[in-house]
Amino acid sequence: MFQCIGYAAQDAASPLAPFSFERRDTGPHDVHIEILYCGVCHSDLHQARNDWSNSLYPMVPGHEIVGRVVGVGAQVTKLKAGDYAGVGCLVDSCRECAACTADLEQYCLNMPTPTYNGRERSGEALTFGGYSDQIVVDQRFVVKIPDTLDLKGAAPLLCAGITTYSPLKHWKVGQGQKVGVIGLGGLGHMGVKFAKALGAHVTMITTSPEKGRDALHLGADEVLVSRDADAMAKSAGSFDFLLNTIPVGHDMNPYLGLLKLDGAMAIVGALTPLEPVLGAHLIMGRKSIAGSAIGGLAETQEMIDFCAEHGILADIEMIAIADINAAYERMLKNDVKYRFVIDMASLKEAAAAA
Amino acid sequence: MFQCIGYAAQDAASPLAPFSFERRDTGPHDVHIEILYCGVCHSDLHQARNDWSNSLYPMVPGHEIVGRVVGVGAQVTKLKAGDYAGVGCLVDSCRECAACTADLEQYCLNMPTPTYNGRERSGEALTFGGYSDQIVVDQRFVVKIPDTLDLKGAAPLLCAGITTYSPLKHWKVGQGQKVGVIGLGGLGHMGVKFAKALGAHVTMITTSPEKGRDALHLGADEVLVSRDADAMAKSAGSFDFLLNTIPVGHDMNPYLGLLKLDGAMAIVGALTPLEPVLGAHLIMGRKSIAGSAIGGLAETQEMIDFCAEHGILADIEMIAIADINAAYERMLKNDVKYRFVIDMASLKEAAAAA
Repeated sequence: MFQCIGYAAQDAASPLAPFSFERRDTGPHDVHIEILYCGVCHSDLHQARNDWSNSLYPMVPGHEIVGRVVGVGAQVTKLKAGDYAGVGCLVDSCRECAACTADLEQYCLNMPTPTYNGRERSGEALTFGGYSDQIVVDQRFVVKIPDTLDLKGAAPLLCAGITTYSPLKHWKVGQGQKVGVIGLGGLGHMGVKFAKALGAHVTMITTSPEKGRDALHLGADEVLVSRDADAMAKSAGSFDFLLNTIPVGHDMNPYLGLLKLDGAMAIVGALTPLEPVLGAHLIMGRKSIAGSAIGGLAETQEMIDFCAEHGILADIEMIAIADINAAYERMLKNDVKYRFVIDMASLKEAAAAA
Repeated sequence: MFQCIGYAAQDAASPLAPFSFERRDTGPHDVHIEILYCGVCHSDLHQARNDWSNSLYPMVPGHEIVGRVVGVGAQVTKLKAGDYAGVGCLVDSCRECAACTADLEQYCLNMPTPTYNGRERSGEALTFGGYSDQIVVDQRFVVKIPDTLDLKGAAPLLCAGITTYSPLKHWKVGQGQKVGVIGLGGLGHMGVKFAKALGAHVTMITTSPEKGRDALHLGADEVLVSRDADAMAKSAGSFDFLLNTIPVGHDMNPYLGLLKLDGAMAIVGALTPLEPVLGAHLIMGRKSIAGSAIGGLAETQEMIDFCAEHGILADIEMIAIADINAAYERMLKNDVKYRFVIDMASLKEAAAAA
C-alpha cells in the first residue's frame, strides 16, 4: 500500500475537503497512473451528496481520469511508463459473465466495480476515484490516450464521451440519418459532436433557443425548440434516432412523436422514474425507448481513437481542486459549458495549504 | 351500392342492434365476401362504447372476418369465387408512403383506413365491419385462407393472431430463446402458440396461477406468477424477449428486471398511458420497451399460411349475433377462453326476428 492525497466527501452534508488515503501497490496486471486531470461528472455531485441513497464514505469522486503512466506490473502489455492513460467509470468486473466476455463490462451480470463509491472485488476496501494524485488500475480497465489528443479536453471523454458514443454506434447512426440530441449539457454537447462526426444530420432538441444557438457552434445542423409546438409538429415522424440526455424524468411523449417508423430513443441521462408514456405512441410506428450505459473498455478505446482521428474533445472549463464545491453549486444551476475539469496540479498546493 | 344487414351501435350508451346499410358494388380490384364468422376483439367493445373518444356512429364493429368469396372484380388475381378469405383491421391505406411500400400498411404515414369506425379514403362514407353478412374489400387487404384451416378458429387470427405473430417475427424469436408472454387473454393465448411454434422456450407470465395452468395446456413450457416475488427474483435477467399483452397501463418495472442484456419488451395491448418506468431499469442492461401494431398484409398472409402449416388456431367460443351484448359483458369480466366468434349464420335469424 502507498499513500495518496485527494479530495473527499466525509458525509452527505459536508463539502469536499483534502483527504489522505492508501491505494494498493502495483500488481502484475496493474497500471500506476499519475493523475493529471479529472472531469467533474454530474453523478459526482449526486453521489457525494447521497442523492441516490447508495453512498459509501469517505468518498473520493471522479471517473473521468487522464494521466501519465508512472509504472506497470510485469504482465502489463497494453501500456508502459510515460504513456498517457485514461480511466473511466469502472475499475473492475467479473470478467467471466456473458456481458464481460462480450466486452460489455459496464453490464457485468455480477455488477462491475465502480471507480469510486464501490468496493474492490477482492474485499471490503472502498474504491477511490480521480479527485486524487494517483490511481492503480488493472490494465483491462485502462485506455491508452494518443499523444495527439489534448489531455484536458480528453478527460470528460471517459464518461460523457463514451456514454454518448456507445448508443450512437449501437443504433448504427451514420450518414443519411437524421439524429436528434435532446438536451445540451455535458452529455448532449458530446452527443452533437459524435453524431456529426459519424456523418448524421444532427438536430439539437432543447427547451432553450439560446442553447440551440450554442449547439450550432458545436456542429449541430439544426435546432428544434421543444416548447415550439408548431416546430415540433413540422418535425413529426422525421427522426431516425434520438439520443436523450436529459438527466431527470420528463415527458417523453412529444419526443416519441418526432421518431420515424421503427425509430428508437435511447435514454442515457435519467436514472430516475420516467413520466408515463402513452402506449399508442410506441405501438403506432413500432417505436422504442431504450437505455444505454457508458460503454465497454474495448469500445472506450475505440471512442478515444475516434476522437484522436476526428479531433473531438469536450469543451471544458478548468478549475483548481479547491474550487470543487463552488463548481458543484454552479453545476446545479447548469452554469458550465460543458464540463468542469480539475487540474490535478492544484492538489499539491491545496494539500500544502490544508 | 347494395343492401347489407348487420349489428350496429347507434351511440355509446345503447346495446348493439340489427342494422341495415349499403356497401359499394364490387369494383375492378375488389373482393366480395360472404361473411361466415367474425371474431370479437376487445377493441370492438371499447369503440362501440366510445371508450377512446373517437367513435363514429352508426358503427358496425368487427375486424376478425372470415368468409367465402362470392365475386371478384375484373382485375383481381389473388382470389376467385369459392375461395375462403380473411379481412383484418384494415381495408385500405395510402399505398404510396414509405410504410405502405415496405408492406407495413398498418403504419401507413397517411393513416390506414380501419375496417370499421373510420371513413373510406374516397370520401366521407363510414367503413362498416364484420358484424354483417357481406363485405367488399380491395384485394390488397384480403388474405387467402387455406381450405385446410378451420374457419371458426381462424377468424381471430386476423387481429389477435397477427398482433402477436408480427412482433415475435420482428424481434426474431426462435429456437434457443427464452420468451415470456405477459397476460393470458385473446392476444396472450395466441402469443404462447406462436412463440412455441417458432421454437422458443415459452413462459406464461401472469398474476393468476390458474391462468398459468391454462397456459401449459396451450403449449407454454413454464409459468411465472408475477405476484410471486421469489419466483420473479429467480427469473431475473433470463428472458430474451417479452411479449406484453396486458391491455391497460401497468407497472412494467418488474418485467424489465426479467430481461437479459439487450432484451426487449414489446407492448401490443396497452394503448393507454403506461406507468412510470425507472430510467435505470432501461439503462442498466441496454433494455428497451417497444410497441407493435398488428401487421402488414403480406405478413398477415404469411401468418395465416404459418398457422395452416403448424395447425394453429385460436381457442374460441362460438356465439350467435344476438348474444353480442351479453358477450361484451362477459369480456369485461375476462370470462372467455379466449375469443368469442360470431357465427354469422345467426344474423339472418336475428334480422328476421327483429
